[in-house]
Amino acid sequence: MSEKLEPPLIIVNFKTYAEATGKRAVELAKKAEKVNRETRVHVGVAPQLADLSAVADAVGIPVFAQHVDPIKPGGYTGHVLAESVKEAGAIGTLINHSERQLKLSDIDQVIRIIRENSMFSVVCANNPSISAAVAALKPDIIAIEPPELIGTGIPVSKAQPEVVTGTIRLVREVNKKVTILCGAGISHGEDVAAALKLGTQGVLVASGIVKAKDPYMIMREFAEATKDHK
Amino acid sequence: MSEKLEPPLIIVNFKTYAEATGKRAVELAKKAEKVNRETRVHVGVAPQLADLSAVADAVGIPVFAQHVDPIKPGGYTGHVLAESVKEAGAIGTLINHSERQLKLSDIDQVIRIIRENSMFSVVCANNPSISAAVAALKPDIIAIEPPELIGTGIPVSKAQPEVVTGTIRLVREVNKKVTILCGAGISHGEDVAAALKLGTQGVLVASGIVKAKDPYMIMREFAEATKDHK
Amino acid sequence: MSEKLEPPLIIVNFKTYAEATGKRAVELAKKAEKVNRETRVHVGVAPQLADLSAVADAVGIPVFAQHVDPIKPGGYTGHVLAESVKEAGAIGTLINHSERQLKLSDIDQVIRIIRENSMFSVVCANNPSISAAVAALKPDIIAIEPPELIGTGIPVSKAQPEVVTGTIRLVREVNKKVTILCGAGISHGEDVAAALKLGTQGVLVASGIVKAKDPYMIMREFAEATKDHK
Amino acid sequence: MSEKLEPPLIIVNFKTYAEATGKRAVELAKKAEKVNRETRVHVGVAPQLADLSAVADAVGIPVFAQHVDPIKPGGYTGHVLAESVKEAGAIGTLINHSERQLKLSDIDQVIRIIRENSMFSVVCANNPSISAAVAALKPDIIAIEPPELIGTGIPVSKAQPEVVTGTIRLVREVNKKVTILCGAGISHGEDVAAALKLGTQGVLVASGIVKAKDPYMIMREFAEATKDHK
Repeated sequence: MSEKLEPPLIIVNFKTYAEATGKRAVELAKKAEKVNRETRVHVGVAPQLADLSAVADAVGIPVFAQHVDPIKPGGYTGHVLAESVKEAGAIGTLINHSERQLKLSDIDQVIRIIRENSMFSVVCANNPSISAAVAALKPDIIAIEPPELIGTGIPVSKAQPEVVTGTIRLVREVNKKVTILCGAGISHGEDVAAALKLGTQGVLVASGIVKAKDPYMIMREFAEATKDHK
Repeated sequence: MSEKLEPPLIIVNFKTYAEATGKRAVELAKKAEKVNRETRVHVGVAPQLADLSAVADAVGIPVFAQHVDPIKPGGYTGHVLAESVKEAGAIGTLINHSERQLKLSDIDQVIRIIRENSMFSVVCANNPSISAAVAALKPDIIAIEPPELIGTGIPVSKAQPEVVTGTIRLVREVNKKVTILCGAGISHGEDVAAALKLGTQGVLVASGIVKAKDPYMIMREFAEATKDHK
Repeated sequence: MSEKLEPPLIIVNFKTYAEATGKRAVELAKKAEKVNRETRVHVGVAPQLADLSAVADAVGIPVFAQHVDPIKPGGYTGHVLAESVKEAGAIGTLINHSERQLKLSDIDQVIRIIRENSMFSVVCANNPSISAAVAALKPDIIAIEPPELIGTGIPVSKAQPEVVTGTIRLVREVNKKVTILCGAGISHGEDVAAALKLGTQGVLVASGIVKAKDPYMIMREFAEATKDHK
Repeated sequence: MSEKLEPPLIIVNFKTYAEATGKRAVELAKKAEKVNRETRVHVGVAPQLADLSAVADAVGIPVFAQHVDPIKPGGYTGHVLAESVKEAGAIGTLINHSERQLKLSDIDQVIRIIRENSMFSVVCANNPSISAAVAALKPDIIAIEPPELIGTGIPVSKAQPEVVTGTIRLVREVNKKVTILCGAGISHGEDVAAALKLGTQGVLVASGIVKAKDPYMIMREFAEATKDHK
C-alpha cells in the first residue's frame, strides 16, 4: 500500500450530490486537504468523473474515481477507461458501490486492470459473504456497507458491531492483507473510533460529510477520532 | 439550435481510443478548433468524461459528453450527472451511442434532463425505424449509424444511400425540426459531401478522424467538403 | 389482428404474484376462459414463463409471454427464445413492461422477431412521447401505463383522461393501425368503460384482477363494461 | 447433497438451441433419463424455462432451470421466480452462466433464495479467482468454465489441466464442501475421465451433447467414462 494510503484512512465519496459538483467539488476537496495537513491523517476524495481533473489539479491528497469500466482502450463510447482517470490524476477507484453494482466477472476484470495501471482498487461489498467473495479477488481495499443502514444516520460501527467483526473474520480467512474499511451511517467522530476499535482500518463516508453544515469540522472530527484509537 | 451548432455540423467522437485520451484529447480538440477557425465550419468534439473539462478549457468549439445518465443530483455514485458535465464545459451530450445503448424510457428521460439544463441532445439510432422512434422523443439532433457499416470503412453515404434517404423520410414524418447527421464508415471528404447531398446536415465520425495519420488534414478535408455541397 | 385479439381486449398480467404462480396460474386462466365464454369478450392472460405451457394446455384463450429476448436460436443460456414460448402455446408477448424495460434497439429487434414468428407484440410505454416512439416501431398493440398511477388504485382512465387522449393523438400521428390499450389503477368496470370511451381499445391489468378477492367476478365486470361502451 | 445429485454428475445445458427446444427438449431429456437408468450415473438437464414443466413431467432425472432472478413473489413482470420453477418441477438452477452473468450481490441473493426453497444452486465461474469468490458464497455446486475454451471443442480437462487443478485448490481454501464441476470443450468420454482425474466431481456440458449426431450415445459414453475413473 502506498504511503499516501496508509491506514487509518478516510475516503469521502462525493456521489452526485449538488453540494459536491463542479466548483463545490474542488472546494470540498480543499477542505479535506486542510484536514490532511493539519492532522496527518489520510483523507481521500472520490469526486464525479467530470470533476476529477480539476480536483486532482487543486489538491495533493488521494483522489479516487467513483467507477471504472472493465475495458481497455478502444471503441467503448460513454465508458470509463482506467487510463483516462489515471491521467486525470486519480490514484485509484471505487468499484461495485451499492449504487453502481457490477457483474462478478467485471469486478474481477476491473481489479486486474486497475492493478496493471498501478492504481488502487476499493471494492464495496454489502454483507459478510459478499465481502469474503470480494476478498478472494484480491483488491487493495474492501469497504463494507450493510445496506440496511445506508442513509439512516445509524452508524454500522455502533448499531451492528457484530456485522463488522463477523465480516472482518470471514474476510481474513480468505485474505490476510486487504485493507478493510466500513461505511453506512457514519456521522460522528465516535462512529469512526468505534469502527477502528472493531478492527477496520478506516471509513468510507458520503452524506455524513458532503451534506454536513460544516464539512471541514466533521472531517477534522473524523480524523482526530482515528488518533484516539491509536 | 444555437449558432455554434448551425449545420453543416461535424462531431468527432473520441470514444475511449488511446489516441484521444488525456493530453492527446486536448491536442486533438485543438486541431478541430483550428479547422473551425480556418473554414468556419462547425466541428465539435466528444471526449471522455475525465478529459471533458481540460478539453473545454482549452478550446472554444462545441464540446459534448459521450453519455449522461437519467438522474438528478443525489445518491448515484459512479453515474453521470448532466449538471456536472455542463459545469465542466459541455454544451451537449451523445445519447444511446451503439456502444452505450439505453432503455427507451431512459433515452426519453435524458433528453428531458438535457433540455432542462439548456444543453443539446444528440441521440444515436441504428436503423430507420429506431430513428423514427427517436424522432418522436424530440431530441435536438439524431445521428443515424447503420450497424452493419460501423468500423468497415465503407461509408454509409455511398454504400447505402437508400438507407439514409429512407431514414430521413421516416424521421421527417414524425419530426420536421430535428437536425439529422449520419455516421459509419465516413473516411473521406467525398463521403461527407455524399452525406449532405442525401439530405443530412452533417456527420458523426470517430475512427476516421481519431485514428487517421493526420487528423487535422482529414478534419479540414471534411470541413471543405461541406462547402462543396452548398 | 387475429380474430382472437379483436378489440375490446382485456389482458391480465400475472406478474410474479404468488396468487398466480403454478397451479394457481392455471386456475386463474380457467376463470378468464369462463368469462370469455360467457361474455364473448376477449380476455387474454400473461402467466410466468414456467407456467406458460400448463396454462396454454388448459385454456383456449389468448396466452402471452411476459417477456421475450432479442435472440435467435443459439447459445443464450437463461434467455427467452420466441420459438420456445410459441411452441409452449403463447400467441404473443408483452415487451418492455415497466418492470422489465429494454434498450430501444432491443424493443425494435424483439418486435421483428415476434412478427417473423407470426406472433403478437404488446409493447408497454409509460408516457405520451414514449408511446409515440413505440408506435414508430409498428408493434401490434401498445399498452400505455402512466407510472405515477401504477399500483395506486387510481384509474388512469378517470384520473388523467387527458394523458390518455393526448397519448392516443400522438400515437395516431405516427401509426394509424396499432391497437391501443391503457393500464394502471384499473380496478372497476367503470374504469374499463372510461378507458374505452377515451378511445382505447382495451386494458392491460394486473393486481386489480390477480389480487382481487374474486377475480372471476372482476373479470366478468370488466368484460361487461366493454359492452356498455359499444 | 441429495441422493439424486451424488457425484459423479453430468449436467446438460440445453441453452436456447433449436435442437433442444419444445418437443425436442423432452426427447433429449428422455435420452438422458435412459442413460441414467442404464448406467446409474446421474445425468441432469437444464432446459429453457418454457420447456421446464413439460420436461419435468416427462422424466424422473434432475431438472434445472437455466436462470432464476433475485426476487420474491410480487410485481416483477418478465422475471423468473424461484417458486415458479420449483413448482414446474426443477430441483435447482444454473446461476451466473457466462451467457447470463449477474451482479455479485444478485448471485449472493439468488443462492439464498434457492436455499430457502430447498433447491440446488449451480453457480458458473470463468476463472480461478472468480471460482474462489463464488465458493465464499456457499453454493451447492460450482461449475468452472474457462472462457477461452468455450465452444472450441478443446476440452478444458485436457488442454488446461493446471487451470482446473489450480481452481480446485483455490476453491478448497475457501470452501471444503462445494461440489466442483468443470466445463468448456467437453466432447468425448476421455475428456470426462480427465476432468474427474483432475479432482472435479463431474461436468457441465452443452453443445457437446445437444449438437451431437447421436446425443444418447455421447451421454452414454460420458456416463461410462465416469465409471472408469472410480
